[in-house]
Amino acid sequence: MSGTDPAIAYAREHHERFLSELQEFVSIPSVSTLSEHKGDMEHAAEWVAAQMHAVGLENVSILPTAGHPVVYGEWLHAPGKPTVLVYGHYDVQPADPLDEWLTPPFRATVLGDTMYGRGASDMKGNVHGTLKALEALRRNGGIPLNVKFLIEGEEEVGSRNLGGFIDKHQDLLRADLCLNADSGILAPDMPSIVYGLRGLAYFELWVYGPAQDLHSGLFGGSIANPAQVLCELVAGMHDANGRVTLPGYYENVRALTEQERADYARLPVTDEMWLAMTGSPQVTGEAGFSTKERTGARPTLEINGLLAGFTGEGAKTVLPAKAMAKISMRLVPYQDDTAIEGMLKKYVDEHAPDTVRWEVKKVTASAPGVLLDRASQGARAASAALRDTFGAEPIFVAEGGSVPIVTLLQQKLKLDSVLLGFGLPDDKIHGPNEKLHLPNYYRGIETFIRFFENVASAAN
Amino acid sequence: MSGTDPAIAYAREHHERFLSELQEFVSIPSVSTLSEHKGDMEHAAEWVAAQMHAVGLENVSILPTAGHPVVYGEWLHAPGKPTVLVYGHYDVQPADPLDEWLTPPFRATVLGDTMYGRGASDMKGNVHGTLKALEALRRNGGIPLNVKFLIEGEEEVGSRNLGGFIDKHQDLLRADLCLNADSGILAPDMPSIVYGLRGLAYFELWVYGPAQDLHSGLFGGSIANPAQVLCELVAGMHDANGRVTLPGYYENVRALTEQERADYARLPVTDEMWLAMTGSPQVTGEAGFSTKERTGARPTLEINGLLAGFTGEGAKTVLPAKAMAKISMRLVPYQDDTAIEGMLKKYVDEHAPDTVRWEVKKVTASAPGVLLDRASQGARAASAALRDTFGAEPIFVAEGGSVPIVTLLQQKLKLDSVLLGFGLPDDKIHGPNEKLHLPNYYRGIETFIRFFENVASAAN
Repeated sequence: MSGTDPAIAYAREHHERFLSELQEFVSIPSVSTLSEHKGDMEHAAEWVAAQMHAVGLENVSILPTAGHPVVYGEWLHAPGKPTVLVYGHYDVQPADPLDEWLTPPFRATVLGDTMYGRGASDMKGNVHGTLKALEALRRNGGIPLNVKFLIEGEEEVGSRNLGGFIDKHQDLLRADLCLNADSGILAPDMPSIVYGLRGLAYFELWVYGPAQDLHSGLFGGSIANPAQVLCELVAGMHDANGRVTLPGYYENVRALTEQERADYARLPVTDEMWLAMTGSPQVTGEAGFSTKERTGARPTLEINGLLAGFTGEGAKTVLPAKAMAKISMRLVPYQDDTAIEGMLKKYVDEHAPDTVRWEVKKVTASAPGVLLDRASQGARAASAALRDTFGAEPIFVAEGGSVPIVTLLQQKLKLDSVLLGFGLPDDKIHGPNEKLHLPNYYRGIETFIRFFENVASAAN
Repeated sequence: MSGTDPAIAYAREHHERFLSELQEFVSIPSVSTLSEHKGDMEHAAEWVAAQMHAVGLENVSILPTAGHPVVYGEWLHAPGKPTVLVYGHYDVQPADPLDEWLTPPFRATVLGDTMYGRGASDMKGNVHGTLKALEALRRNGGIPLNVKFLIEGEEEVGSRNLGGFIDKHQDLLRADLCLNADSGILAPDMPSIVYGLRGLAYFELWVYGPAQDLHSGLFGGSIANPAQVLCELVAGMHDANGRVTLPGYYENVRALTEQERADYARLPVTDEMWLAMTGSPQVTGEAGFSTKERTGARPTLEINGLLAGFTGEGAKTVLPAKAMAKISMRLVPYQDDTAIEGMLKKYVDEHAPDTVRWEVKKVTASAPGVLLDRASQGARAASAALRDTFGAEPIFVAEGGSVPIVTLLQQKLKLDSVLLGFGLPDDKIHGPNEKLHLPNYYRGIETFIRFFENVASAAN
């Protein structure tokens, strides 16, 4: 099929220019969380808008939010055909720790089949790839359906203004289907589609003791140390089997079916690969489940941060007045995300000694887990596009991460998403030496072309 | 006796001038740890040297160290009489948090019987008091013994250059006895002498997991989280009775005698006072011991700091690569301070799971606990001086803190110390609103006069 598709042929002819455009994009340090990059964020938004113009999208605009703007563009000249809303983001994570990078994080260095640079995998490659697919279709017979692009600038800071933006622009964003390109596949030759996403609840637990930091020699051993109490509370949040002990935590957690367990067992991800990717000495987790089940199908509780007392160089003999843990839970579908805060508070209330005071603070609004319909029109279009591009049947997987926009679009616009992107598990997104596997970037463009074609022809 | 002692009478006649000199001294922001105060440190050293000149000391000099200098002065005109080395420090802790001070920390504000200001209690009042005692003696019959002053500028940063200084100036510092004025009493009308000091061992425990920070959604639940493992290790370092669980920790810890327990029980420090001083909701600690026993006579283990992952504002879903706890132990006499590191490593080795790597780093050289001879010449001279000044028999107490100089002088010069100073437990040393109780400052001068007289006459 690919041999006769002029859009695919066009995409293959223009690898060199596409790559050089992507290098330009990745070299813009669009770090949304750092105010010193505000100018770079504007630059990146303008760069995306210019690309939209260049591929022929209309009504291109940089729309303000309370934070960084959204870049919007559309092509609505296929009456009777579905409208696909393409979702992506142009912002990236901070590059630190800088001294662990082997190449400059914002230079987009190409070495062989790999591009190194912050944002190359998450997700400038995928944003650029969807636009290049549109370009290839437009120059070779025309774009066969209606598309709208929503490329936001705050995904890496929790998409905090996106809900309000969607509320304000409901008509503009109305569509039949969302193509969410902020996703990945299992391995370079192993196409996959994410159909399950875990939800998220995120808290700070504060433990308070003395009114101010005290001299640990004069007072140590006679009053409760908040740092120690915090450690005791955290230590008790898992039992010896690695299960979360918050009361009621596993209510509504569905047992895996035989079929699902068989599907997980077939995933060609081994524990050895997992150790190589993470650098951890061993895998571990909830007893009775495999690594892929633990990250894809089971709810978890992780400590994201700890802070108490003196943490600088050397010795300060302080008995800290307070101690804090950042604690987040990944939730599976059917778990009630709004009940988690109460479970955490109940746990702390039952276990904290009277020698301290404590507080649980909600850090972000919680999001429930999501299950997408594997048989939807969009999922079938994506599946066929992957099969034709990679020459292998894609695997449906439930992912460990959370993509709040999927829930937002379901809740606010009744819009279902298809997750189709080309990151790899070892791309080191959010860490130093983030990379993009270029053969997948190119195959991604071809997959996007076929996806748009498949959605259009399914509507015939 | 005081009625007939002309030196005591002289001291009482000059309260006003002494107070105004002390205000000048406390108003110098001699913060040793902050480089922007280097000029103030020099100013404070010169101020002390000028005071030594004024009271008639000889060979006054500002002697360099690798850090802040030592101020030295001597009076050696009493052949056949003992030589007392007076120890003190002219540096102070930083004043922050500044916004919690009710008066400017470096203005030395006098309100009624109280002077507020950083360093007023720790320990400019005591340094100045020893010099005023010398002045009173010199102007009223002469200084009856030999004295040397060693006033350092780095006590608040761990006296880090003092060992080298003592090595270099062994002959200059040779004496029969050290009067260490960096001390306090139990309450305004309750004279006491510290005869026991706890030692210190200080470590960092690092737990390492993945090679770099990971996305907690993608990897959480499948590999060990170093922050959680650290919490589990810390939580296990005390048992349900508040006892430290490091293997061998209580070996060589002497049981309290009936007499010692009776002495502790007589101390007029109540748990209510302890809660008022600390602001903690409850006292707690090792089962079977009182608050004063827990801080004075029992070894402890405290968490001084915790650091892992993301600790800024908001949510970052990171699975941290490493986690760190600052852990210090206060050691009682006879505990082998050099064995503690091995005990900590053995504990971690026995309890850390194979899913992480770990490291114990020694932060400072350990110091053993110290017991001073309650029947020594110096202790008897101090005891009589306190009794005659306060009209009450002094109590001997073992303190929770550590004073490394006491150990240094024993090790390097075979010199025993007497701890005689006039701070109070609620003086808020190291915290905001540090204060000095002025009636005790004046009684301190009288006590120092009598102490020097007693040491001189005991040698007859």
